Order: sequence, then structure tokens, then C-alpha cells
Amino acid sequence: MRFSDFFAKTLRTPPRDEESVNSKLLIQAGFVNKLAAGVYTFLPLGLRVLDKIENIVREEMNAAGGAELLMPALHPAENWSKTGRWQSFDALFKTKGKNGSEYALGPTHEEVIYPLLKHFVSSYKDLPLALYQIQTKFRDEPRAKSGLLRSREFRMKDLYSFHADVKDRDRYYEVMRKAYLKIFKRLDLGAVQTKASGGTFSEFSAEFQVVSEAGEDIIYYCQSCRKAVNKEITSQKAPKCYDCGGETEEKRAIEVGNIFPLKKKFAEDFNLTFKDKEGRDRLVEAGCYGLGTSRAMGTIVETHHDKKGIVWPESAAPFRVHLVEIQVKAEKVYQALVEEGVEVLYDDRKEATAGEKFADADLIGIPWRAVISEKTGDEIELKRRDLEDTKLVSVRELIKKFKHAG
Amino acid sequence: MRFSDFFAKTLRTPPRDEESVNSKLLIQAGFVNKLAAGVYTFLPLGLRVLDKIENIVREEMNAAGGAELLMPALHPAENWSKTGRWQSFDALFKTKGKNGSEYALGPTHEEVIYPLLKHFVSSYKDLPLALYQIQTKFRDEPRAKSGLLRSREFRMKDLYSFHADVKDRDRYYEVMRKAYLKIFKRLDLGAVQTKASGGTFSEFSAEFQVVSEAGEDIIYYCQSCRKAVNKEITSQKAPKCYDCGGETEEKRAIEVGNIFPLKKKFAEDFNLTFKDKEGRDRLVEAGCYGLGTSRAMGTIVETHHDKKGIVWPESAAPFRVHLVEIQVKAEKVYQALVEEGVEVLYDDRKEATAGEKFADADLIGIPWRAVISEKTGDEIELKRRDLEDTKLVSVRELIKKFKHAG
Repeated sequence: MRFSDFFAKTLRTPPRDEESVNSKLLIQAGFVNKLAAGVYTFLPLGLRVLDKIENIVREEMNAAGGAELLMPALHPAENWSKTGRWQSFDALFKTKGKNGSEYALGPTHEEVIYPLLKHFVSSYKDLPLALYQIQTKFRDEPRAKSGLLRSREFRMKDLYSFHADVKDRDRYYEVMRKAYLKIFKRLDLGAVQTKASGGTFSEFSAEFQVVSEAGEDIIYYCQSCRKAVNKEITSQKAPKCYDCGGETEEKRAIEVGNIFPLKKKFAEDFNLTFKDKEGRDRLVEAGCYGLGTSRAMGTIVETHHDKKGIVWPESAAPFRVHLVEIQVKAEKVYQALVEEGVEVLYDDRKEATAGEKFADADLIGIPWRAVISEKTGDEIELKRRDLEDTKLVSVRELIKKFKHAG
Repeated sequence: MRFSDFFAKTLRTPPRDEESVNSKLLIQAGFVNKLAAGVYTFLPLGLRVLDKIENIVREEMNAAGGAELLMPALHPAENWSKTGRWQSFDALFKTKGKNGSEYALGPTHEEVIYPLLKHFVSSYKDLPLALYQIQTKFRDEPRAKSGLLRSREFRMKDLYSFHADVKDRDRYYEVMRKAYLKIFKRLDLGAVQTKASGGTFSEFSAEFQVVSEAGEDIIYYCQSCRKAVNKEITSQKAPKCYDCGGETEEKRAIEVGNIFPLKKKFAEDFNLTFKDKEGRDRLVEAGCYGLGTSRAMGTIVETHHDKKGIVWPESAAPFRVHLVEIQVKAEKVYQALVEEGVEVLYDDRKEATAGEKFADADLIGIPWRAVISEKTGDEIELKRRDLEDTKLVSVRELIKKFKHAG
């Protein structure tokens, strides 16, 4: 993609009114634009990163047997009244139609998926089921100063699984736990599985926490087990690790995912039952598995940057190579890369200086930079974003390196 | 994909409370589920169709030089007050945060994209620009009884183009007009270009209308030119064709797209200006190009069905082949098709009879049905959804037919 066609636009200075590292860098580098506190536009570069993250999540959810659907954001008030959350859910945005219908703007979808399943589940033969969506959610956050880490409108994957009994629910919980660890590994987020409270309607939960000063949670982290406990569920200061009994460290962390078995609350609220093998009516067991995809994007920036800008991991980078031309045209090399299917961002700006182009490449943070100039002759100077070394390669070598990788 | 894994679930009878053909068929065949009037969940089969349609739109928008972004649904009230539409836009859903902030739920995005561009446009060198999104929109429709044709929450592609002068705007309008015709051709929707009013802030508009009894618009259609005029802008009954002067027919039609140049209203409201070559400040010219992707899905069903169910065009079909096993297992053939990348829905249900499986295949409407039974021996009985003939083919022939097509 060419800079000129792709609306790749960096700002000379970081935005003044932003507090968080992720929003400062993402806005300055042209990935997002702030419309209002906690409400962001994903610009073409940013949407590309979001798509990469969401496709990784999608691949792992499909691999774990999930079927993807898309539920609405407008939820009838009746459904939320039925669960008691029309009043009790604090951060619920509400709207009212001219005909008097009231709706919640969905921050989560139990109130939609349980009634949906009543159409499709009647026997134990219909179970288990795992359904997920990757969708835009809304929360009336009192404080929205952390960029993509806590927004009023955000992107999220939520999967709901339904089972005939606790044993099968626990089996699938383990499938999801492993899928989550795989996703965070692929995103180069060292997410730590963390014991936490299950809230009002769950027995317990496992949070996936990424250690970062930008985080709002405090965890006690055991480095040898790579497990932690959330401060909210322990009365001790620096408790021993629940797994190995060793020392833990107190860390700030960002919660990027949360999985928990649901008690029977929602099955009772909506009377979601099935006939078991003996013909008895039983309430469906369920699990809920959330993962903030836009929050994951903000978290990657919080944990992958230096003084010059963002340093994307290959899996989430908007492009694989950033092609920079200095005086000499890189058009032919660009065409050759595009023809071979290499994801390349081509800085074809005439008005920018070499210094400006290098600074923008560092700010945008694509993992590899390829420079063509009078100095490089027929070769190309290749540099990793996070290393100082450069080396000269031929066009053929460049294509070979990036064609099938990633 | 297997029936059992994919949450493919048909209902025995059409839903009772639906009036429109598209919602009756889409609900009975398990593509969508109605949460509330005008608010639908896209089930896995339906999401697959929506994705197919949206990817076709995306391909053509990219080919026409559009860059994709994703704007939010929560729009600050201030932006809508600035254009006067906070009061005047009749179908606007509104919500209010606990801190007093008011928002519109975006039914269109002029109020977002104009302020956004103020960050990035200052000189004629920054123009032209074409930015689009495929996103969820909200309209407080007084009447929402037409299924996906008129929903309160719906999916839409909206592209906005920005230009230094009218001439360049008109040049791009022609690019978009051709892109729209191409999209509707690919979707097998015989969309008729129709002259219509531009509303309050546009000079004129071109609508793309699909002739159907389910439509809410009346057009005067000239069969030889394949052009029409919307009844709303003509005082005559059955006017002559504006192009060839020939006879026109009065037809009901569904508006699936609408493109129009924007007057300078929004540029004035947000003071979106640029410096021209002579250094003078000038208001930006713009065009707006909308296409309802969920409405296009509903329109396909209205125009592509028979007594037995839906008949998807290949481009929008959720799968290419519907594989049905009768007594004999089709597992090996299924695996062979999957390995070759063929999009196949495999009806692996044990409890369903042959009659039920055939009825469901007709209802779901995948373009080709492949049956394996005791009668077919080592071969497979292949049938097009819209034809009665069947023929026997080998597995090899089946793979060859579907591997690279589509």
C-alpha cells in the first residue's frame, strides 16, 4: 500500500490532551483518532492492526470449536429487566425509541444469547454448544482516560458455551484456557493467568493479566509458575504463590481477558432448560469467555514501544515491511513485492525528507524497514525496527524473506 | 463445515409474526434470529452470507481507491448540533452518559468524518481522498416490519470522498457509479440506476433500485435503457424515459444504494477548508456513497427464492456445496473437499430423514447439492438448487468443479 493511497498520516507532535502512552502513540502515528473521551475512530493503519488481532482470535476460537455469529447492540429493556441488570448494571448506556421501546446498548450479551438459545436447545442432544462474536460494545465508563485500555465504545470477542453438566463445562473451560494462552502468545503479550473473583454470578474467574505500569489491576505474580492472584481476592499483602508456595511480586497489570463459568443465574432467568437422557428438565450449564480486542491493541502498544515510537510484534503489525525511498524511486521493488503478496507500506511521499521518513517509520513501528537510496545501489538496506544493525540484500532476497513468513 | 459444529438449525415452520418474505425465509432457514422489531442476530449461516456480501463491496471500494477505516457509533451531541441535525434528524437514537455527555447513535457519519478530516486536510495536495467503512448503524424507524430491508440496527457501507473542486468530485462520482453497478452485478441484483431527489443538502442523487414487490419505493422504469426515475421527483404519471424518450413502467422497488454529491453544507458547518494552489482558503467538495449490506442480503432473498426456500447466487451463498449423506457416510468425501479448500456444508445429522435433509437443503438454498447414498454407489449425485436435473459425478470431478470456481 502506498502512503498516499492509504491515508497514512502522522502528526509532528503527540496530542496534548492524552494521558496514556497507547493513545499518545496511536494518535500521533495515525492509527486512531479520538472523537470523544473513550470513543475512537480506527484509521486505515489502526483498522489493519485490529483486523490482524481479531483474525488471530477468530482462528483460535474456530480451532476450539466455536461457531461465529453476530448479535445486535440494541437490546430490549425487558431482557435486562428479567436478569435484574437494567437497574444494577452501572455502566449501561440506555436509549429510547419514539414508539416508547427502551433498549440497552450491549456491554455483554447474556441477555441476548440465552433467549436466542431457547429456540434451538431442547434436548441433551443439542449440547454442548460454543458460540462467539467479535463485536462493538458499549460501557458508560465514568473515567475514560486510558486510550484503548478503557473505552466507552470498544471491540470485544465474547464466547458463550452451553453444556449438559458441570463436568462438560469444566472440560471446555480448559479448552478455552489453553486457547487464550495461545492467542496471547501469538500476540506477544506475556499474559499471566490470574485467579480472581467471579463477580456476583460466577464461582471464580481466571483473568489474563499483562504486567504494565498502565494497568489498573494489582496482581501478586509468581515468576516461576507464571501465575498470579488478583489483589481483590486476597487479604494478605504479598501472599505466597498458590501453586508452588514461593514468593510473589506485586505488579500493576492490564486485564486483557477473563473466563469464568456462569452459575445458573441466567439459565434460571430465561428458563433455559433441556431434557436429559432420562427425560427430566434440567437447567443448562454455561461458561463465558471475554477478550477485549481493542484493549489488546492498546496493551501491545503499552508493552511494545521505545522512545521513537511503536514496535509492533510481527503478528499484529499493519504491514510486514516499511519501504522507504530516498531520492531514488522504489516503485519497481514495490511492484515486485506486491505481486508476490508481501504486505508492504510504501512511503512514496515526495515532500518528506529522509529524516522525516525514518522518524515516521520508527513512529509507526512496522517490524522491518527497507530503504532504497543512491547509497544502496541495486541493493536494499534492511533493518529491524528494534535493532540498530542494517544489512544489504537483493530484491530477490527481500521477496524470499517476506513472501511466506508471518 | 458440519451441520453439528456450525449451529445450522432450521425451523419446521416459518415464524408466525413475520410479514416479509426475507425475514420469514431467513429465520426459518436459520440465517437470522429476531431479537426485537428491526433488530436481528446474524447466526453463523447468516454471518457467512453477510461477510460474502461485505467482502465484495470491500473489494470494489478498494479497487476504486477507497481506504477503509472504522468510525464509532457513539457520536457527541455537539457534532450533531453543529449541523442542526440533533433536532432535525427524525430517526436519531440518543443516549446520555452518567457524566451528562449526550450522544447520537450514528445513522450516518458526516458528523464524524468532517471533524476527523480537519486534522489531516490543509492543502490541495491532501486531496482527493476517499474513505469508507463497513459498520453497524442505527435508525429509530417508526415501522420495522420488512425484515432486513428496514431495520433499526443494520449494516452499511458508507464512503465519503473529498475533492478540491466540482470537476474532480464529478470524476469520482462516475468511478463510484460504475463500482456500484459492478457490485450489484456480482450480487446478481439487477439494480436499476434511478434519478432521485438529493434531499435537503444535495443537488440530486442516483439511487440503485431493485424491482421487487417488497419495495417501498415506486419507480418509472425504462426497460431498454435500464434506467428509471423515482416517483418522488416527478409530477407526471408514467413519464417518458429521460434518456431515450421511450415508455416507462411503474414498479415497486427496493433502494439498495444511493450516491450523491454533498453540497457545501457540512464543509461550512465544520469549516473544512484547504489552501488552493494560489494560497486561498476554499471549502472542500464532497460526495457520499451509501450501500446497505444487510439490506442487500434481504433483497437477494426477496428476489432469489421459490416455494421451497432461498436460491442464493453463487457470490453470496454461505457455502458452494451442500453435502447430504443418506444412510451411507459421506465423511471421506467431506474430508477430501475440505482439504482442497472447497466451501462445503456437510449435513452429518443422524436423526434426520432423507426427506428432512432434502427439504432443509432446499430451504437453506446453497447453489449445489451433492448426495451420497446407497443408490449412488461410488459416485455422487449433483443437482443445482434451481434445476431439477441431476447427474452422477466422481469425487475427483466434484473437487475439480468446486476447487477454483467462485
